[in-house]
Amino acid sequence: MSGALNDTALDQLFRTARTHNGFKPEPIPEATLRALYDLLKWGPTSANCSPARFIFVISPEAKEKLKPALSAGNLAKTMSAPATVIVAHDLDFGQRLGVLFPHAPGAKDWFADPVVEQTTAFRNGTLQGAYLIMAARSLGLDTGAMSGFDNATVDAAFFAGTRIKSNFLINLGIGDPSALFERSPRLAFEDACTIA
Amino acid sequence: MSGALNDTALDQLFRTARTHNGFKPEPIPEATLRALYDLLKWGPTSANCSPARFIFVISPEAKEKLKPALSAGNLAKTMSAPATVIVAHDLDFGQRLGVLFPHAPGAKDWFADPVVEQTTAFRNGTLQGAYLIMAARSLGLDTGAMSGFDNATVDAAFFAGTRIKSNFLINLGIGDPSALFERSPRLAFEDACTIA
Repeated sequence: MSGALNDTALDQLFRTARTHNGFKPEPIPEATLRALYDLLKWGPTSANCSPARFIFVISPEAKEKLKPALSAGNLAKTMSAPATVIVAHDLDFGQRLGVLFPHAPGAKDWFADPVVEQTTAFRNGTLQGAYLIMAARSLGLDTGAMSGFDNATVDAAFFAGTRIKSNFLINLGIGDPSALFERSPRLAFEDACTIA
Repeated sequence: MSGALNDTALDQLFRTARTHNGFKPEPIPEATLRALYDLLKWGPTSANCSPARFIFVISPEAKEKLKPALSAGNLAKTMSAPATVIVAHDLDFGQRLGVLFPHAPGAKDWFADPVVEQTTAFRNGTLQGAYLIMAARSLGLDTGAMSGFDNATVDAAFFAGTRIKSNFLINLGIGDPSALFERSPRLAFEDACTIA
């Protein structure tokens, strides 16, 4: 592997990237959503299980379906974002392992225990949600991730009759800097990390 | 925000980055581990709760403590990696919210329910683990993430007497390309994504 990315890239990915609360109205072309997936899909998951399922909510009708699930503080910004991604995971991810992990025909059985199945889907679907945030920033999009919504309402509206479960939401678009809050501090290295 | 990163950066982060199974023996300087944290810490979490705690296992003594927890398939590569990160989360993350989310003095209470506390710590600690993978790649390091280990053994060895729980492991270093497996396929956009 090569050296570090330059400071402009590190800023765009991490240091100056912000969680946005307002977005400009320009729609996101479908080609950009496909480019986004074509980056994030390469991020690593356990046995390549790739359990995340993404709904890109862009139509007024789909936004209306999402609306009753949103907490008050997340309502206006989500309705105004050109796209809101429902990051979900499929508890039936094991059915795809024959394709995704072809060299280990028994891989499906590794996740047969219901607790392991649920933990694996949640952990790896969450990883893929983070890859989506980083891929969006890589493409010059701004993001706003949210857990403040009612998962059961989203599941009933979008995933009825499946074993797909919503995890969190990500607003996508070009952020409006005037709606940013002051940046909150982060933990010092010594408070979050140990070298052993 | 600016435009997309160039193809070299997108390759390094996503398209040609691989999960490595062997690492060159060169140690990772402490300054690099600090630089890694100083990038990943900026990734978004719910109410900036930042529950992840990271142990960078680099000494032979700490590697020996980790050893009994590892599955057979993860043993050799983990013992040979110059650093193995234990990605964990602190269920007591709420105690830091006064510092991390100072404008909402009641934020701690949002996570008081034990299920919400556990789910929030696991979801956001996992996001931070993904940010670490992406930050490592940004700095030119290779990674190998693993869930194949016994969490209870790691918790007893490294987190006794705390409410910190291990989540997954990440080997860090400069990968040995000769130990790579053939790359597995990913799901098509249509199999993982819906535009609604």
